[in-house]
Amino acid sequence: MNNSNNQNNLIEIAKQIRHNIVVSTSRAGTGHPTSSLSGVELMTQLFFGGFFRAQLDNPANINNDRIIFSKGHACPLLYSMYYACGHLSSEELMSLRQFGSAIEGHPTMEWKYTEAATGSLGQGLGIGVGMALSLQKDFESEEAYPNVWCLLGDSEIAEGSIWEAMNSASYFNLNNLIAIVDMNRLGQRGQTQIGHNTENLRRKAEAFGWEVWVVEGHDLEAIGEVYTAISNSPTEKPKMVIAKTFKGSGISFAQDKEGFHGKAFDESQTKIALEEIGDVDLELVGTVEHPFTNLKPKEKTAVQTAYQKYTLDEKVATRKAFGNSLNNLGKINQNIVALDAEMNNSTYSEIFAKNYPGRYYEMFISEQNMISTAVGLSLRGKIPFVSTFASFLSRANDQIRMAQYSKANLKIMGSHCGVSIGPDGSSQMAVEDMAFFRCILDSVVLYPCDAVSADSLTNLMLQHQGISYLRCTRAETPVIYDNKEEFVIGGSKTIYADLKDEVTIMGAGITLHEAVKAYKKLNNDGIKVRIIDMYSVKPIDKQAIAKACLETKALIVVEDHYIEGGIYEAVCSSGVATKPVHSLAVKKMSCSGTPSELMNYMQIDSEAIVKKVKEIIS
Amino acid sequence: MNNSNNQNNLIEIAKQIRHNIVVSTSRAGTGHPTSSLSGVELMTQLFFGGFFRAQLDNPANINNDRIIFSKGHACPLLYSMYYACGHLSSEELMSLRQFGSAIEGHPTMEWKYTEAATGSLGQGLGIGVGMALSLQKDFESEEAYPNVWCLLGDSEIAEGSIWEAMNSASYFNLNNLIAIVDMNRLGQRGQTQIGHNTENLRRKAEAFGWEVWVVEGHDLEAIGEVYTAISNSPTEKPKMVIAKTFKGSGISFAQDKEGFHGKAFDESQTKIALEEIGDVDLELVGTVEHPFTNLKPKEKTAVQTAYQKYTLDEKVATRKAFGNSLNNLGKINQNIVALDAEMNNSTYSEIFAKNYPGRYYEMFISEQNMISTAVGLSLRGKIPFVSTFASFLSRANDQIRMAQYSKANLKIMGSHCGVSIGPDGSSQMAVEDMAFFRCILDSVVLYPCDAVSADSLTNLMLQHQGISYLRCTRAETPVIYDNKEEFVIGGSKTIYADLKDEVTIMGAGITLHEAVKAYKKLNNDGIKVRIIDMYSVKPIDKQAIAKACLETKALIVVEDHYIEGGIYEAVCSSGVATKPVHSLAVKKMSCSGTPSELMNYMQIDSEAIVKKVKEIIS
Repeated sequence: MNNSNNQNNLIEIAKQIRHNIVVSTSRAGTGHPTSSLSGVELMTQLFFGGFFRAQLDNPANINNDRIIFSKGHACPLLYSMYYACGHLSSEELMSLRQFGSAIEGHPTMEWKYTEAATGSLGQGLGIGVGMALSLQKDFESEEAYPNVWCLLGDSEIAEGSIWEAMNSASYFNLNNLIAIVDMNRLGQRGQTQIGHNTENLRRKAEAFGWEVWVVEGHDLEAIGEVYTAISNSPTEKPKMVIAKTFKGSGISFAQDKEGFHGKAFDESQTKIALEEIGDVDLELVGTVEHPFTNLKPKEKTAVQTAYQKYTLDEKVATRKAFGNSLNNLGKINQNIVALDAEMNNSTYSEIFAKNYPGRYYEMFISEQNMISTAVGLSLRGKIPFVSTFASFLSRANDQIRMAQYSKANLKIMGSHCGVSIGPDGSSQMAVEDMAFFRCILDSVVLYPCDAVSADSLTNLMLQHQGISYLRCTRAETPVIYDNKEEFVIGGSKTIYADLKDEVTIMGAGITLHEAVKAYKKLNNDGIKVRIIDMYSVKPIDKQAIAKACLETKALIVVEDHYIEGGIYEAVCSSGVATKPVHSLAVKKMSCSGTPSELMNYMQIDSEAIVKKVKEIIS
Repeated sequence: MNNSNNQNNLIEIAKQIRHNIVVSTSRAGTGHPTSSLSGVELMTQLFFGGFFRAQLDNPANINNDRIIFSKGHACPLLYSMYYACGHLSSEELMSLRQFGSAIEGHPTMEWKYTEAATGSLGQGLGIGVGMALSLQKDFESEEAYPNVWCLLGDSEIAEGSIWEAMNSASYFNLNNLIAIVDMNRLGQRGQTQIGHNTENLRRKAEAFGWEVWVVEGHDLEAIGEVYTAISNSPTEKPKMVIAKTFKGSGISFAQDKEGFHGKAFDESQTKIALEEIGDVDLELVGTVEHPFTNLKPKEKTAVQTAYQKYTLDEKVATRKAFGNSLNNLGKINQNIVALDAEMNNSTYSEIFAKNYPGRYYEMFISEQNMISTAVGLSLRGKIPFVSTFASFLSRANDQIRMAQYSKANLKIMGSHCGVSIGPDGSSQMAVEDMAFFRCILDSVVLYPCDAVSADSLTNLMLQHQGISYLRCTRAETPVIYDNKEEFVIGGSKTIYADLKDEVTIMGAGITLHEAVKAYKKLNNDGIKVRIIDMYSVKPIDKQAIAKACLETKALIVVEDHYIEGGIYEAVCSSGVATKPVHSLAVKKMSCSGTPSELMNYMQIDSEAIVKKVKEIIS
């Protein structure tokens, strides 16, 4: 510890921050002043007591500590802290929650000091796990690790994602991760589950392998002692400060009172509040300590592609091809890391795990934390590839939703999609995953049918900045593409085309092979159909759709997915489908069976395609 | 305890069960024999030692204990147990995992003894919370509560949903909920996070308020002693048995070995396994004790509707109207229960909570457990209404996905949808919820624009059996419908129609009001447009779409949702949209702002509609 600001100064800074929380939210007429006020002393001591270390005029400095507001609604406190550092102007502070302002109702990446977008509770700690892991990797010695500080609310402690992160942090010995729990007793609608029972949380956190301190959360001196103890702790354990605080602290009419959540004070309340806070020095600027280390950032290198060769007709599962690609790409791109939820022998991320154990994170069966950790790793410059069964990715839908707001660079592979997995039954079958991933802003959804395309599409994922999803099949499928075939995001491949084509069949993944089989049967019957591999589900290839509509009578989209939100709806809503579009998709309750029985039952196999074509042209 | 079967008998039954696990999975050529084998003694003692009490020839008997296999992949054990009770034939057992068989790869409702569909790990305990709550409500005295037993795997302990349920069970004093953790050390791809560290889990569970026993999981006698202790325990706490077991127990080549997860034994392995198990008596039938109580089930009554009156032009938020309806319906339907994730003052389920506290469950901020608990309540005959912010329902997408396989009867309300919530910003805005809920088989997705329709649609949700979703808006919107207006699932309302209509505008929720404003502006300019309220998003009103296509030049769908998976795609893929369909939807990153600024920015307000209409007709 290097406390460059004396305690008097901290008291004045805390007053200024309290004042600014009230003024900025009252000015906005909306926000969470009381949830912000409870954390004032915790954050004042952290930032201005010499514990948090960062070069604030360079937020990208890799030596900086990181601060995540998992209780994102307390951001008026965060913004007021940066005002107190001299890194947010009065004008900016007064733009809180206004359209076009970088300081939004919950922290977003529009503001340069936001480490991660929060606002869906319980996610900040998992992101902290990813950042702490990343920083441990970037720095050689334990003494040099920058810290990741995470401010948590007590309501969000009920979220399971918190306990996944708690488990993970101690498993990975993240002694540079410090959770500060602002236990202000009150949630949105009344007392939280455990109120001010600090011992209850202490027992839980200790059982999860954390080193814990309990402190009176408005006592600057006591807080300073705890932070000092944390700085000096020799353990490998992650650290938690459980701070007994009061919501609305310092404002008599609001302190520890119900009914004040998410409400800005009105004019008369504001007047009283500011009087109670007393005169503040708005010119006062506190000093934040600089980092201990001065490591230079590694030079940024462009990502490098790598392609594996496969033989035509060779049977390889696309998930296996993904595993091979991940391994090949990992060899030449040192920033690639991989995470899996205890499925790496099914997703084939085990190949990477075996060869690059230092860059593989076994997340066990905690998909939420897997995604949050990946977000944290991504935000610190790593390139995470995440994999598990596609069906179980739905466990982390909220984390993936929030990842778009953190502008994370995530490459997600979901294996075992669709009913074609067979005997394991409905619980293991993702039949709604494309619908979800299409609903991420600017996402890319790719769906390979063979090893060559899976390999190329994995390369495309790496090159793409943002959230991309690769949908993989359990079954081994024959290689149909030459190794030289080129794939692009937004593309498609026309497998068979003839001037006499009557109908176009669009498939992807396993149904592309059914379409090919149908082509052959129909061809024997003298019926010409066009076959297109819609490997890019989002963006969809509008040109191919338009051309097919121009040149054939109708389209049939066949997919191993519910009819809603998948390829059929993507085609229908493309704006260029000027001919009738028919759907062959999963429209009934799935069950156990062999892949072919189930594809037949769902009417997404070659037989169903042939039947549909004949219906259309008859 | 009333142990009607002596220990010798239990040993023979255990042998038979072990034999049947091997035979049934080997016959299927697929399945999880080793994960089943580790639980044999735990389940044999439970069922045949006189602890589990049920009238098995009447699974619906309300006095029965319930058994949930949270580790659903161990169902060959479950099926073999019912064979040992004489409630599954040899022929049925040998149909494991076959197409058309009721005994699937993971338990589903196709089989009459399945309590809840499992297979996505970590969900059984939360369902158990719901069932235990429901049973406590149905029986007057604590002694009479039937028990809910839940078999958990050790890998799934890493799931946050488990810890949400752990928290919830102790909060609700569910002393009739007993978790049995089959700690067999091995997950799918190697050792679990804590291996055989029973003390680690004991500390965690005790910190979460559970009474815990640790036992050698293959020692029938020791297990019997623990179950006896549980039966005699006077505490209010939920109970956990942590059993140290071995995966593949009893089979030398597989026991405690890696590489055997989810793999049936081959022919030679099966031969060795059966030899090691030794001769078994396949005719042996064990007795399961009957329930302690003989309560008659309450007579089933049809659900009753109730309508609230509103005044035209009165401004009422649809979420408030939902809250009123829930309260009115709760008054006359005693089976209705309500659950909320610490948002009941925003979702207005607080009205019900205040008036019917015995039927309201505060789930705190743990959305996953809220849904699982609701599933459990539903499966025991309650009618759960679940509410929170629509954006945070995404936290429980996997639980909702699995609820369809449990055939649960859930009424879910998501409030604060879309960018129109305003200053809170993107994290709080559900702009993908309709896409998700449309992807539930046979789901109903309803989206009211005013209090009258919200009231009617809440009534329709109650009448509908299955999963239905009501999408509600934060803002107060004016009442546009007369109280006598009738709404139906699959319907729509044409607000303005004229023979001269040039374009049809389809809105729902808040955009319907923008459409009405646009109508007025356009009307002033002499342009006639048709306005349709698409309050039933799924099923969508195909007739209305077809008619609009017949009578007007083009459709414009305007929605406060991403373009993917919402109303636009539902209309485009309806098969009857024979005219061009245009989309006004959320297509950019959202942010803080006022509702009108954001609706303008996203081009989903009346101004954007007017502009689009003029573009189309120019």
